[in-house]
Amino acid sequence: MTLVTIPAREGAGLRLERGQRLRLVDPLGGQSGDLVTFRWGDITEWLSNGRSFDYGGKLYFSTGDVLYSNKSAPMLTIIDDDVGNHDFLYTACSIEMYRIQYGLTGDHPSCLDNLTRALAPHGVEAHRMPTPFNFFMSAKVQPDGRLVISPPRSKAGDAIVLRAEMDLAVGLSACPSLGCNGGSTKPLAFEIFGA
Amino acid sequence: MTLVTIPAREGAGLRLERGQRLRLVDPLGGQSGDLVTFRWGDITEWLSNGRSFDYGGKLYFSTGDVLYSNKSAPMLTIIDDDVGNHDFLYTACSIEMYRIQYGLTGDHPSCLDNLTRALAPHGVEAHRMPTPFNFFMSAKVQPDGRLVISPPRSKAGDAIVLRAEMDLAVGLSACPSLGCNGGSTKPLAFEIFGA
Repeated sequence: MTLVTIPAREGAGLRLERGQRLRLVDPLGGQSGDLVTFRWGDITEWLSNGRSFDYGGKLYFSTGDVLYSNKSAPMLTIIDDDVGNHDFLYTACSIEMYRIQYGLTGDHPSCLDNLTRALAPHGVEAHRMPTPFNFFMSAKVQPDGRLVISPPRSKAGDAIVLRAEMDLAVGLSACPSLGCNGGSTKPLAFEIFGA
Repeated sequence: MTLVTIPAREGAGLRLERGQRLRLVDPLGGQSGDLVTFRWGDITEWLSNGRSFDYGGKLYFSTGDVLYSNKSAPMLTIIDDDVGNHDFLYTACSIEMYRIQYGLTGDHPSCLDNLTRALAPHGVEAHRMPTPFNFFMSAKVQPDGRLVISPPRSKAGDAIVLRAEMDLAVGLSACPSLGCNGGSTKPLAFEIFGA
């Protein structure tokens, strides 16, 4: 499959079959994205940060780590990672978040809207969206528990590769937040390798 | 209302009206519990650790902190807290967790089962359960992201008090895990104060 571009501030949905690999690329550098997954054909099984934290015994994931479903089944394994810096704590940004955090009054694209549109064919409404795997997003826990967001450390062309451990419906979003992306929103890209 | 005991390894469901306060007590000390909430009459709005992390800018919550819903509305405010040590990262323990982490082959009570039974009248199935507020549970993030669970620091009679910011359906569980509770499972208790 050729490399597909997700335009800045937009999203994409895709099917990933068991054994296929999804390569997520930051074409220009410094851009983060959101990834959520549901078992193909069964949206009661979804990507769970809490189960992944528990089985991994840690908050930060990179090559070799497994991301689990709410039903404790492996969904994705990270098989390659140029960046090694991702977040799995923050919910997808939403219009309410932009209003509360930034005082915005008008409209604004959000990862929650992007993911909801991308997964609409599967019947995934916004209120069913779990916490995404925020790839390339740099958020670190300080010793006192405070959370500090920094610009993504991904450089142009950096990628992370995930292997599907079951058939998956995947939603992706090129995060529209200036705050998480060093002050400018940029495209992302992906490609799928055969089983 | 008088103090209600939740027996060791069991759960309870309750209605909390806006303005009412819920006092959660550790009668014997060293026991943690799980709390989840949904908006009364609308299970599409639920307690969200990720939104709470984002708006609070931190992972650890105590007196004065607000716990938010997935729709960015305040659900609960912590108004008093003898312990100051709670977890909001781990999913509710489940039978699959006991099998994977401890190699268990038989049955075992779990917070997920307790919460599902407690919230059954509201149509909350297990797959809709968000990450609970794990009160009195001691889990700390190490600088490298590793998670370390220690016995709860709550002493006999210690309590946390939460004020409802909307009408809520609340599920509680006295956690049946030996690992999170210093090697023995014990009861919890609660009382509700008027609006």
